[in-house]
Amino acid sequence: MSFARAAIASIAGYVPGEQPKGRPLVKLKTNENPYPPSPKVLEALREFDGARLRLYPSPAADAVRETAARLYGLQPSQILAGNGSDDLLTIALRTFVGEGEALAFAEPSYSLYPVLGDIQGARNRAVALTEDFALPENAAELAGDAKLFLLARPNAPTGTLTPRAGVEKLCREFGGVVWIDEAYVDFAGENCLDFVERFPNVVVSRTLSKSYSLAGLRFGLACANEALVFEMLKVKDSYNVDMISQALAVAALEDQEYMRANVRRIRETRDWLAGELAAEGSRVLPSATNFLFVRPRRPAAEMFAALRERGYLVRYFNLPRVSEYLRITIGTREDMEGFLAAYVELDG
Amino acid sequence: MSFARAAIASIAGYVPGEQPKGRPLVKLKTNENPYPPSPKVLEALREFDGARLRLYPSPAADAVRETAARLYGLQPSQILAGNGSDDLLTIALRTFVGEGEALAFAEPSYSLYPVLGDIQGARNRAVALTEDFALPENAAELAGDAKLFLLARPNAPTGTLTPRAGVEKLCREFGGVVWIDEAYVDFAGENCLDFVERFPNVVVSRTLSKSYSLAGLRFGLACANEALVFEMLKVKDSYNVDMISQALAVAALEDQEYMRANVRRIRETRDWLAGELAAEGSRVLPSATNFLFVRPRRPAAEMFAALRERGYLVRYFNLPRVSEYLRITIGTREDMEGFLAAYVELDG
Repeated sequence: MSFARAAIASIAGYVPGEQPKGRPLVKLKTNENPYPPSPKVLEALREFDGARLRLYPSPAADAVRETAARLYGLQPSQILAGNGSDDLLTIALRTFVGEGEALAFAEPSYSLYPVLGDIQGARNRAVALTEDFALPENAAELAGDAKLFLLARPNAPTGTLTPRAGVEKLCREFGGVVWIDEAYVDFAGENCLDFVERFPNVVVSRTLSKSYSLAGLRFGLACANEALVFEMLKVKDSYNVDMISQALAVAALEDQEYMRANVRRIRETRDWLAGELAAEGSRVLPSATNFLFVRPRRPAAEMFAALRERGYLVRYFNLPRVSEYLRITIGTREDMEGFLAAYVELDG
Repeated sequence: MSFARAAIASIAGYVPGEQPKGRPLVKLKTNENPYPPSPKVLEALREFDGARLRLYPSPAADAVRETAARLYGLQPSQILAGNGSDDLLTIALRTFVGEGEALAFAEPSYSLYPVLGDIQGARNRAVALTEDFALPENAAELAGDAKLFLLARPNAPTGTLTPRAGVEKLCREFGGVVWIDEAYVDFAGENCLDFVERFPNVVVSRTLSKSYSLAGLRFGLACANEALVFEMLKVKDSYNVDMISQALAVAALEDQEYMRANVRRIRETRDWLAGELAAEGSRVLPSATNFLFVRPRRPAAEMFAALRERGYLVRYFNLPRVSEYLRITIGTREDMEGFLAAYVELDG
């Protein structure tokens, strides 16, 4: 007998990407940034007055909202701060999807989405991407009466970018809230942030985990019209973002130049590696992210194990449609040169 | 028309205690600790290597679980770390209470509890405390088929401590999970942590916000048997506690001596102030916390406003049964001497 709700007792839960312990591996598995956070973030950390921690933080992270609003050309009331974008996604489910109602998401996509649906007791409605992993024309129709559509753009784990026109069509035609998860968007070169002002049912979320090198800090931002933010504010925990994170998030957002420079380096390494892997004979999907989704010549599960043996930990999903691929995070150029050598040798 | 669930659109949400802006006030409103965190916490903050923030934190906060397990005489698998105990309470609702099922809690108690029930779409079942704010003998019967009973012990905002025997009776007789919220327990002198090993349906939660002077850090711990923790782990966000918080939480838990010394000082100030206010003619409830719940001679709403005018911000709840009282956080002895002088002068 379990005290847990049936919806919880019956599921396995989400398994975060393995944190390697033991002998050192080059971790190319959870899409972390190979470069450290901005020197301004490190300075804000050094200068943070720890004695202040005895007090509660700003409940809605006011200083971050103001900084983000300036950066995005929005009002602070259009911004919601979260303890990572996972916190924001959880808030989304709890705000918009009741038990027994439907949650829509693309498939394949971020494997957390169906888990969030399970936890909420929602009916998961997977909208299959086309053969080349694009959003189908009739996505809104396939989503039907779902209350929320979670759409990662760029998509994970495929790295692909649904054209803006396709997303716009979904926003116009879908009756519920469209949540555009832009976790990787800084690596893409364009985004959908303007949809926030153009559609009453659109949320665009960002994270500091990837392009800002702050996965350890847990900081996400959701942008939407005031009415949507107002409802989500009721659902979030009262003090969902701690005081140090707020200070460091402001510093990170204020140093756009540093973030952009790192993004440029990662894109260069990504595009170089994509070319090399394609030349070697692998199928490489076009990537708008800081990772590549690659089908090796050898079976992917074998390559995963062989690469691991050589000290390179990538991500392998034993799931329909993606089980022939590996997801490879872009590290430093040096790391990826070593990786490429091992890959070419193993993919015989 | 709202995109939000009816359960969300229809509620006002929880309003956190006001953060004073503008002219300086002595803030005796949100039960913060007047003393800074342990020097060991400040040292851990200074020594934290910010470059590590590019990586994800330990998903379950392993180092904290191990430290807490040693401290509490439990296994790490019996401990769940949360982004403040609010995060843990949210996880509790989502793990144990389905939409339309009942949530039980004492009344008056922590005003967040019914809000969490509202958000989950639960039926809130308030169990009225007796006239002197004790848990009624038949609490389990009154809670009926509720799936979860949230019990703050010591209670807030009353500061009172239900005898262990009463809590034990509830744990034995109630069919759902009893969540003993020990946010203030370090100020009480005794606790119910041993119930975790004795009952399959008991969770005991702690926070670093009060006795450890770390409200700004957001760190809570829940202790329960492995089966309950296993289910709650599925529900928590994958990386719900950031890397800096994990490091500082370990340092805080390891410095019991510093925490105990501050608790002693606060208890001394509390007991002295309680005597003075009782002598002045106020009704002062016995407190096992870092605050006093006091019924002044003048109407409480008037006293609240008059004290504020004099620079002392306390908490006033315009709610049934408690609207004649003020909740006064215990600050430093010096702060409370100034407060007492103002109080005596105003309570004419």
